[in-house]
Amino acid sequence: MSQAKWIWYQGDFEIYHHMLLSCRRQEKGCDYPCQWHISRPEVSASFRREFTADRDGEIRVVTRSKGMVRFGGRLLPVNKTIPVPAGEHKISVELYDIEKFPACFIDSPVLVTDERWTAECFDRRPLPVGCSPMFTSERDDPSVFPFDYEDRAPERIEDAEGGVLYDFGKETFGPVTVGVPENAPVTLVYGESREEALDPENALIRETLTSSDDPVRPARAFRYIFVKAENARRIPLRAAYEFLPLEDKASFRCDSALVNRIWDVCAYTFHLNSREFFLDGIKRDRWVWSGDAYQSFMIARYLYNDPSVTERTVRALLGKPPYRTHVNTINDYSAYLIIAVWEHYFAGGDEAFLRSVWPRVKELYDFIVSRLDENGFVVPRHGDWIFIDWGVLDKDGPHCAEQILLWQVYRSMARLAAALGEEDVYTVRAQALFGKINSRFWDKEKGAYLDSFTSGKRFVSRQTNVFAVLFDFAEGKIRDSVIENAILNPDLPQITTPYFKLYELMALCRIGRLETAQEYIESYWGGMLAEGATSVWEAYDPTQRGAEHYAMYGSDFGKSLCHAWGSGPILLLSRYCAGVFPTSIGGKTFRVQPDPGKYRAFEAQVPVGNGSVRITYSAPELTVCADVPGGTLVVEGRETALEPGKRYSETVPDA
Amino acid sequence: MSQAKWIWYQGDFEIYHHMLLSCRRQEKGCDYPCQWHISRPEVSASFRREFTADRDGEIRVVTRSKGMVRFGGRLLPVNKTIPVPAGEHKISVELYDIEKFPACFIDSPVLVTDERWTAECFDRRPLPVGCSPMFTSERDDPSVFPFDYEDRAPERIEDAEGGVLYDFGKETFGPVTVGVPENAPVTLVYGESREEALDPENALIRETLTSSDDPVRPARAFRYIFVKAENARRIPLRAAYEFLPLEDKASFRCDSALVNRIWDVCAYTFHLNSREFFLDGIKRDRWVWSGDAYQSFMIARYLYNDPSVTERTVRALLGKPPYRTHVNTINDYSAYLIIAVWEHYFAGGDEAFLRSVWPRVKELYDFIVSRLDENGFVVPRHGDWIFIDWGVLDKDGPHCAEQILLWQVYRSMARLAAALGEEDVYTVRAQALFGKINSRFWDKEKGAYLDSFTSGKRFVSRQTNVFAVLFDFAEGKIRDSVIENAILNPDLPQITTPYFKLYELMALCRIGRLETAQEYIESYWGGMLAEGATSVWEAYDPTQRGAEHYAMYGSDFGKSLCHAWGSGPILLLSRYCAGVFPTSIGGKTFRVQPDPGKYRAFEAQVPVGNGSVRITYSAPELTVCADVPGGTLVVEGRETALEPGKRYSETVPDA
Repeated sequence: MSQAKWIWYQGDFEIYHHMLLSCRRQEKGCDYPCQWHISRPEVSASFRREFTADRDGEIRVVTRSKGMVRFGGRLLPVNKTIPVPAGEHKISVELYDIEKFPACFIDSPVLVTDERWTAECFDRRPLPVGCSPMFTSERDDPSVFPFDYEDRAPERIEDAEGGVLYDFGKETFGPVTVGVPENAPVTLVYGESREEALDPENALIRETLTSSDDPVRPARAFRYIFVKAENARRIPLRAAYEFLPLEDKASFRCDSALVNRIWDVCAYTFHLNSREFFLDGIKRDRWVWSGDAYQSFMIARYLYNDPSVTERTVRALLGKPPYRTHVNTINDYSAYLIIAVWEHYFAGGDEAFLRSVWPRVKELYDFIVSRLDENGFVVPRHGDWIFIDWGVLDKDGPHCAEQILLWQVYRSMARLAAALGEEDVYTVRAQALFGKINSRFWDKEKGAYLDSFTSGKRFVSRQTNVFAVLFDFAEGKIRDSVIENAILNPDLPQITTPYFKLYELMALCRIGRLETAQEYIESYWGGMLAEGATSVWEAYDPTQRGAEHYAMYGSDFGKSLCHAWGSGPILLLSRYCAGVFPTSIGGKTFRVQPDPGKYRAFEAQVPVGNGSVRITYSAPELTVCADVPGGTLVVEGRETALEPGKRYSETVPDA
Repeated sequence: MSQAKWIWYQGDFEIYHHMLLSCRRQEKGCDYPCQWHISRPEVSASFRREFTADRDGEIRVVTRSKGMVRFGGRLLPVNKTIPVPAGEHKISVELYDIEKFPACFIDSPVLVTDERWTAECFDRRPLPVGCSPMFTSERDDPSVFPFDYEDRAPERIEDAEGGVLYDFGKETFGPVTVGVPENAPVTLVYGESREEALDPENALIRETLTSSDDPVRPARAFRYIFVKAENARRIPLRAAYEFLPLEDKASFRCDSALVNRIWDVCAYTFHLNSREFFLDGIKRDRWVWSGDAYQSFMIARYLYNDPSVTERTVRALLGKPPYRTHVNTINDYSAYLIIAVWEHYFAGGDEAFLRSVWPRVKELYDFIVSRLDENGFVVPRHGDWIFIDWGVLDKDGPHCAEQILLWQVYRSMARLAAALGEEDVYTVRAQALFGKINSRFWDKEKGAYLDSFTSGKRFVSRQTNVFAVLFDFAEGKIRDSVIENAILNPDLPQITTPYFKLYELMALCRIGRLETAQEYIESYWGGMLAEGATSVWEAYDPTQRGAEHYAMYGSDFGKSLCHAWGSGPILLLSRYCAGVFPTSIGGKTFRVQPDPGKYRAFEAQVPVGNGSVRITYSAPELTVCADVPGGTLVVEGRETALEPGKRYSETVPDA
């Protein structure tokens, strides 16, 4: 028998936990609902399997749902022993669950619940069930997400006006347990900064508790906790770190101690945001955003290379059709999700996962296509948000960056369809769109792509032209021109969000400007660390001073001080400095193309496919060793096939 | 200020209670999930209103959901007082509710929640909110369906083997409260018949309780309760009748005491099945079936003429798109639902209700059309159930009865579209289908419609030809031929289900054979009463004896003894004997065309439109009085306009 696992209707686990997560934001004493449509899991499901018992035995359908078992021509109750004679059988378990989602578990020598079962939500369309290696025992409960916990002791406790301030030394996330005396309410103020914790009026998370409240408070982000109460020193308070035990497969050390610290802070920040799904940030809004997630997928592959958070996030973002708005209501975010599904499949090669999400990917694609204009361009329809980036963009009429994303969606769909043996109806659309974009948005005189061809302003943004390079939309002379006239043009407005900055830095690396990225890492991320950051902030403006850094969105402490997209250096250093990337589906082949850039020495381990590559550089000597086959080392244009386990040395001349 | 009402996202109330109802079936100790897909209410909703406060005031958003209020540019908590200055305002209340559905209530001199609010489920498509006159006070809770309760005392208590048998004298439905002693479990066996209650092994509903179980048991159907326990006489037991206070607007009395009793039993049966929605039967399966509901809609209009149960049932059956199977998985049942929406609108004229369900009606229509074959015929696709009726039918290839229903769907859609000022794309399809049905299914030699043109069997069923007459599909000579060769042809297999029997009796009345229907009422319904029925059974076979009557679906007590479709005589007597029916939308005009048939005297009150008509007949004198305008009395072809409140007398010669 294989390992028994709890089973559920495909996607229900992710949709259920995404629903809970989307209903957890709190702000200034209000419960703050998620601002887009949230899917619910199914009420009922029928789980089925045909099996052969090689001897007499018995089973018990363990479930917290209600329902019955159809077996041997009879209706039988769940949670009771059922004799199973040797021979061939069909079994179906029909469950409903109004509060959670239908799920069950069988672990017997004659039958186990596992991937071989199918389930339908009584829609006559059975699908492979959902299951997870996290839920393999009768006592497990898939409606409770199984985090790990570690106690966290405060580094400092100090008296402050009206109470006591706990400083846990660095950003963390988890439940706080507080002993509230009878008839003496206690106010907790959570602060990512000291200033936030000490400002109950303006802090995002604050609550006043009485002894009848649950002493274990919901897991939240904080570095500081201000306990406002009489005799606050005598109020017992304990904090725990709530996390997933995801083990890093990557490491990076170079001759810059600052860069090494940045790597560590980025990795810690990323782990804090790697939960049921990829969060944008752990304080606010703690929702799942597809644009943020797209960057997290890339970072995750280069940090712990575990597909589970990515796959849960893809299922959560896909939700349940019909699609009535774009993902997170943002046109670009629908596009990223489809592009991400291709990139995830390319890196990991999990066809079963791809098949399981493919119908919804196609429905999302159909939704995108159903809203194009007569030219086949993305335009803002009712309820749409053409985001691309904060900052100066010309959003009149169709926006060029959206069209490049759509072109990449077509190409991703074409590759996904090919991987699944389905007809390619996408490439022809990509080709037609390619021509239309070039005829409408290319400005010969400016030598770059315009944001808009309808406004007459001929505005050139970095963002649009970054996409043209990043997705290989621009080639040859067009690409050269884009690089010269947009990417490297100092006269264009700078990108100011760390979110789009990552795309820009990736584009700079692609055009051989790794050193620019390395310098930016030291100035931007280094700048935050110099301000005392213990995790990477949502944004950083070196001209701001003190608590000015914490304000955003019109709120004194509105900025998140632990934001996933800030972990981009992990991707940049692994992909472009260590230079490791897959070149075929599942990383069965990959390239190792190191570029030390400004570093004189570095040592990196980079996951790829099912293995990893170790790269050691100490100018001018480079040593590379991969633990899986398929690698090709590229130095100065020389290609060397890498045998697993074998060390290869090269001399890399100074740049 | 108008009456304040609890508000929710349109349809959530019905979908929530339909979900609960669909998860209540129990059978032989098992929880028995509904066998089709069940929709869930929304997780979150945003309620909005623009309003003018004519003075300073305050509001409080009362809710059991979580969320916040956006008002005056601020986020404010729910359930707390919010000052409202005089002037123009926009307010939005954003709520989520993981356990129930988002709902709120405001009742203040400056603002109330009512029909004028809109709500969206964060899909950028605001709709008028849902609300109900059942929920108008702060203490009300729309997640609890507000039934009325009356105590019911047993008529007889007798000792039986191993316990005590309570006989409540007639079929009823409600919660039983039982005092279970500590450490002495009590078994309750529910029986619609004495035999069922005394057969714990085979009774459908039985349960063994301990003192830790809730002493108030879920509302269930029963006439008998068998308490199996030691010292069962000393176990306290109380029963209540759970019902909706729907007041009959109809009455019927004639010179047959048996018919009068049948009317009363039919009315009682119908009230027992008129609950959150129209049930098929109160014991089993207590699900909402569209075919059964279609008949209930007609009966309801002629009994209490309150649209609320019908409208809730329509919303529940429509559920939430996308449609992946037919309603209840049955092709004919999708058709009835659309036809019913038209008939409901025609009788009641409620355009707001129609507009609110129209998008889903159109999606259901699209689903039906998406599954037609190349001839435009309904054929069984994956997951479909071509039901029509139990009994002998030739279901090879497209079935004629399904095509006639489809034709009626097209006609209903055309009329609904016209009522809403939308384009009629349906009539042309109806006309094309009319031709195709006649060319493929009409058998000139047999003078009737065949069930199938593919099997070669040339089988003529009553069912198919009943539909041809009932929906006015057959006209002129074709109709005459159908009547002679099918409807009145004694050689065709008889219809044996009371469900289809109602359609047949309606068709017989339409062709002037009221007396046949009257005789059948006395023999069939009268036969059940002679067997001791206190409510109308799911089916009745006069050749069966004793407890044989209670068996069905392969189970000794599988038959429901209180089935809604058995209340058809209410419709037959009101529509065809009293002869009242609407002739324009909302019953603004109506006809009164009495036909005493075999009765020498009758007195009837029949609801129509917003009023009712009283008809008194004592051979040969007929008196008619309507309390609303628009009526036309038709006797022997003579038409008389009826002034409200005025009595009209006519002499009706013996037939």
